[in-house]
Amino acid sequence: MQAIIDAFVRKLEAFIDLRPDELRVLQALQGPSVQIAAGKEIIHEGQHRSSAYILHEGWAYSCKRLPDGERQIIDIQIPGDFLGLHSSMLRMSDQTFVALTNLQITKINMDRSLEFVQSHPRLAAALLRCVAHDEAIIAEHLVSIGKRDALERTAHFLLEFGSRMGSIGRFSNDSYECPISQPILADALGITTTHLNRILRRLRERELVMFRNGTVIFLNRSKLVEATGFDRSYLEE
Amino acid sequence: MQAIIDAFVRKLEAFIDLRPDELRVLQALQGPSVQIAAGKEIIHEGQHRSSAYILHEGWAYSCKRLPDGERQIIDIQIPGDFLGLHSSMLRMSDQTFVALTNLQITKINMDRSLEFVQSHPRLAAALLRCVAHDEAIIAEHLVSIGKRDALERTAHFLLEFGSRMGSIGRFSNDSYECPISQPILADALGITTTHLNRILRRLRERELVMFRNGTVIFLNRSKLVEATGFDRSYLEE
Repeated sequence: MQAIIDAFVRKLEAFIDLRPDELRVLQALQGPSVQIAAGKEIIHEGQHRSSAYILHEGWAYSCKRLPDGERQIIDIQIPGDFLGLHSSMLRMSDQTFVALTNLQITKINMDRSLEFVQSHPRLAAALLRCVAHDEAIIAEHLVSIGKRDALERTAHFLLEFGSRMGSIGRFSNDSYECPISQPILADALGITTTHLNRILRRLRERELVMFRNGTVIFLNRSKLVEATGFDRSYLEE
Repeated sequence: MQAIIDAFVRKLEAFIDLRPDELRVLQALQGPSVQIAAGKEIIHEGQHRSSAYILHEGWAYSCKRLPDGERQIIDIQIPGDFLGLHSSMLRMSDQTFVALTNLQITKINMDRSLEFVQSHPRLAAALLRCVAHDEAIIAEHLVSIGKRDALERTAHFLLEFGSRMGSIGRFSNDSYECPISQPILADALGITTTHLNRILRRLRERELVMFRNGTVIFLNRSKLVEATGFDRSYLEE
């Protein structure tokens, strides 16, 4: 029964109706559940043949470092997301994955993945669609950094995570829990913390959205969608 | 014999030694070869259940459009690359793919893909690694747009395409053919054409790299690698 309410299963069920035998296979593919403390690196850039994980509870982020020590945040992961699935297929991981909060993760048993693909092609196809979604999300972040101004970018981010949280049943009353600190959020958006603060104040004053004490509350979501041109189709199954 | 020298086969062979039966399967998975004229759209953003293609000859680019008509170029594709493989797994394509030059492409027969995954898991895994690489490239472009200045960004781009052309055997004497017009390159880099011109002149004057008449010539590749911190591990098998 546990599996039914799991965020990962919930996410996959957007793609296929999981049969009981497929649910069992999904569980068999995963190692035991492991706790990771906030701030810890789960995978590091350059790691040889890194593993892939499923994030069951907590938030994480992926980033790439530059030679000068700066970093670019690539994406933020929420319950039900993979950590390092695409990296695990490369010889060396191209990204670092860090726990934003305390996490509960399971390792995917990649040794059995070929066998799994053969015996459960329908499930393999659903997982492949998850990977395709991850790429679509990163492409959209490229658009944000490349073309959206700081306000649009911030609003777009808050809308995207609202949609992503909604797809795992964690969006209600126009709000969701968002445990991202302002320095991390500013970093993900490529702006300074001071600038982010100004933007968040403006969004609140215009009665569009409020981000306070770890909670995002949409005051006028449809107006915000209109203002940013947010189109959630890249997040859809 | 034709298949042996094909850019796509060459790229896949970085991952696995293709057996004759796998080569035959790869060919059976593809429709007839089709010519596309420069400037034509192959897949458009929002297209329902779009197809995936293999680019055999020519260059293409993928982009996303904003409501105000602006666009962000996401990646540029060269022979051997997929067009829209990840998009074909989404309900609607999240990107538009446009022919930069005249192209020769084949459509991938997705209807048979489940069957194929089951019968040739080794080949399916190699294709999956191609998709993982595409994501790694887009993440690196996000780093470029987010953190590199115009000169580093331009140099990084020219180095990346040198490596990618090398992996299909089209890089020799420190040079490669690059049929990208300056307006498109400027667009991909998120700078103006005037700015790009200035940057290219500076790179030439410093005797690092020259991009002229559709050819990129590295004058001092190792110094350029050092100056930009280019690390080709995200492109490696």
